[in-house]
Amino acid sequence: MQKITTPTLLLDEDICKANIRRMAKKAQQHNLRLKPHMKTHQSKRVGDWIKDAGISAITVSSVDMARYFAEDDWKDITIAFPCNIGRVQELNELAQNISLTLLINKPETANFLEKHLTTSINTYIEIDTGSDRSGLASDDITAIKELITAIEKTEYINWIGFYSHAGHSYSCRSKQEIAEVQNSVITQFENLTKHIEPDFGAFEICSGDTPCCSIADNFGPIDTISPGNFVFYDLMQNQIGSCTPANIAVAMACPVVDKYPERKELIIHGGAVHFSKESMTENKTTHYGTVAQKVDNYWEPLDNTSHLIKLSQEHGIIRCSNNVFKNYDIGDTITILPVHSCLTANLMRQYQLMDGNGTTVDMMQ
Amino acid sequence: MQKITTPTLLLDEDICKANIRRMAKKAQQHNLRLKPHMKTHQSKRVGDWIKDAGISAITVSSVDMARYFAEDDWKDITIAFPCNIGRVQELNELAQNISLTLLINKPETANFLEKHLTTSINTYIEIDTGSDRSGLASDDITAIKELITAIEKTEYINWIGFYSHAGHSYSCRSKQEIAEVQNSVITQFENLTKHIEPDFGAFEICSGDTPCCSIADNFGPIDTISPGNFVFYDLMQNQIGSCTPANIAVAMACPVVDKYPERKELIIHGGAVHFSKESMTENKTTHYGTVAQKVDNYWEPLDNTSHLIKLSQEHGIIRCSNNVFKNYDIGDTITILPVHSCLTANLMRQYQLMDGNGTTVDMMQ
Repeated sequence: MQKITTPTLLLDEDICKANIRRMAKKAQQHNLRLKPHMKTHQSKRVGDWIKDAGISAITVSSVDMARYFAEDDWKDITIAFPCNIGRVQELNELAQNISLTLLINKPETANFLEKHLTTSINTYIEIDTGSDRSGLASDDITAIKELITAIEKTEYINWIGFYSHAGHSYSCRSKQEIAEVQNSVITQFENLTKHIEPDFGAFEICSGDTPCCSIADNFGPIDTISPGNFVFYDLMQNQIGSCTPANIAVAMACPVVDKYPERKELIIHGGAVHFSKESMTENKTTHYGTVAQKVDNYWEPLDNTSHLIKLSQEHGIIRCSNNVFKNYDIGDTITILPVHSCLTANLMRQYQLMDGNGTTVDMMQ
Repeated sequence: MQKITTPTLLLDEDICKANIRRMAKKAQQHNLRLKPHMKTHQSKRVGDWIKDAGISAITVSSVDMARYFAEDDWKDITIAFPCNIGRVQELNELAQNISLTLLINKPETANFLEKHLTTSINTYIEIDTGSDRSGLASDDITAIKELITAIEKTEYINWIGFYSHAGHSYSCRSKQEIAEVQNSVITQFENLTKHIEPDFGAFEICSGDTPCCSIADNFGPIDTISPGNFVFYDLMQNQIGSCTPANIAVAMACPVVDKYPERKELIIHGGAVHFSKESMTENKTTHYGTVAQKVDNYWEPLDNTSHLIKLSQEHGIIRCSNNVFKNYDIGDTITILPVHSCLTANLMRQYQLMDGNGTTVDMMQ
């Protein structure tokens, strides 16, 4: 590894490519289309690895991210976010060059778009399957039918089906609990299909959060999945039960700048502006990352007691076991698995590959 | 205000300049040198406003930030972070052009620097006055004397005094509690002075967190203060007791993209990648920001019940009072005071001035 003198986000290309291939294969086996969510990595280079796995359609979370990937010749992009009507001019520009799919959750959004669109777009209606974020309740058949009817009256908006992000799977803590979320999503879409198909014909169902897509064996009426985090995974996904530490494709490498034997704490350059303040709680310890070391081609947590327990803007405090503490001196590099890889990557804005040359991979700026 | 179609960090130049002038005046009245911490704003333009208040020395938290401000002709910069010895080459380059002050907390750091420095630098020894982050305990006189002795033996390192960041003031919730932290810091430095001055002569004491610097009337033996957050303040500082809402110089403007009457929730484009996941708890509600509106030249919180209660990567959920909810429709812009302005600014990487022209102010990239 190149000498690390500043907080650096390492990306293991082999683990990442294996994660992509595994999800692509699973989608194929279940006869699902995989439209991976690119918000996790925000990188054209990682996008190339996704292309290499035979994927041609993607999901993003903002108009800017859609533009970034459209520049890289992605031709089928879903912006999985309640349509931001203030960006209609950019949406028109995008729709001239790609097949653009939006989420429309309100008749007034459809009406606004119909007045201002100059090119046709596709839309999903978002269904809230339990995450309580956005979307219509799956049993609010009246509102759903009214919205489809409003959309079908437009010239520029083509209704193609339903989208759901079952974000409540993030509070699961076992494969069994994830399976229960997935089964609930399936039941909701089966009921919805019974009510909608007779009046409006066949449609697509796109659903996909990393826990359910990683663990589920049954996808019921779901046609398309759009997980994002699976390309990297992280400690939170490990805690949920979606992955093992061997699947985690990114780790932070930080310089040790100070150490305190009496409290077994290492001070690192690596703070809230590098890791994000997303925390998790394990064995009653709330932390922002776990000390790990590369063994057998993956980053293995060194023990269950050495965590990044406190973050200021640029400082991180790692409270260590005796064994870990004695192995690190000022000037050394320490490697930490992040709690939430999406937010860490978003802050770091660049990856360093583990190819021995310190090759960097750019992200959207 | 310009039409807002994407999450935008608004900066009120008048409030910010008033905050800077107030702190500069207070420093002058107490015969203190003000070396403001630039990590909050990370902007040469805001740095110009600081220059306009007669300030010539600054504090930063990283080598990169020191380089950024050195480019803008700042000639006296303290990197208030345990010295990162891996960056010694950049430190040498910086020290050729500016008066550079570092924090050295260990004899081994001093020894390493002495071997690798090619230009003289100044150093503070960091004292941990109670924040339990980094620095030597103020009563560990043996270690402090050993470290000064080690530094004084070097050719390239000039010991100038002590630095402290009393970060434990962030857990205060009243002016009285802040005054207690300040008094404890003063007592510790008075005791330290008694032990150190007879052997090593006069030295400088630099201490400065925004709560103590905003509220304290007594600075005891402190010579220099280095607060940072005070240029913007935020909801956390308001809760601590360091400021009022009228002093908060930044606010997020976000488009409303969806709304849910049954739960009185607005969905905004504005998530963890814009606000950061720094939260605070008020009246048993944990939140990431409070809905506000510009009145009387500042952003006034609309009521005590309309907060940004949940963040995904790009989504924010605002739970509102009835009155607030009914005033916002899809496509509208909503303004939110941030919990922690430093982390929000760090994510946004650009400000928009309130000058009616949408003028943007750049930050370090």
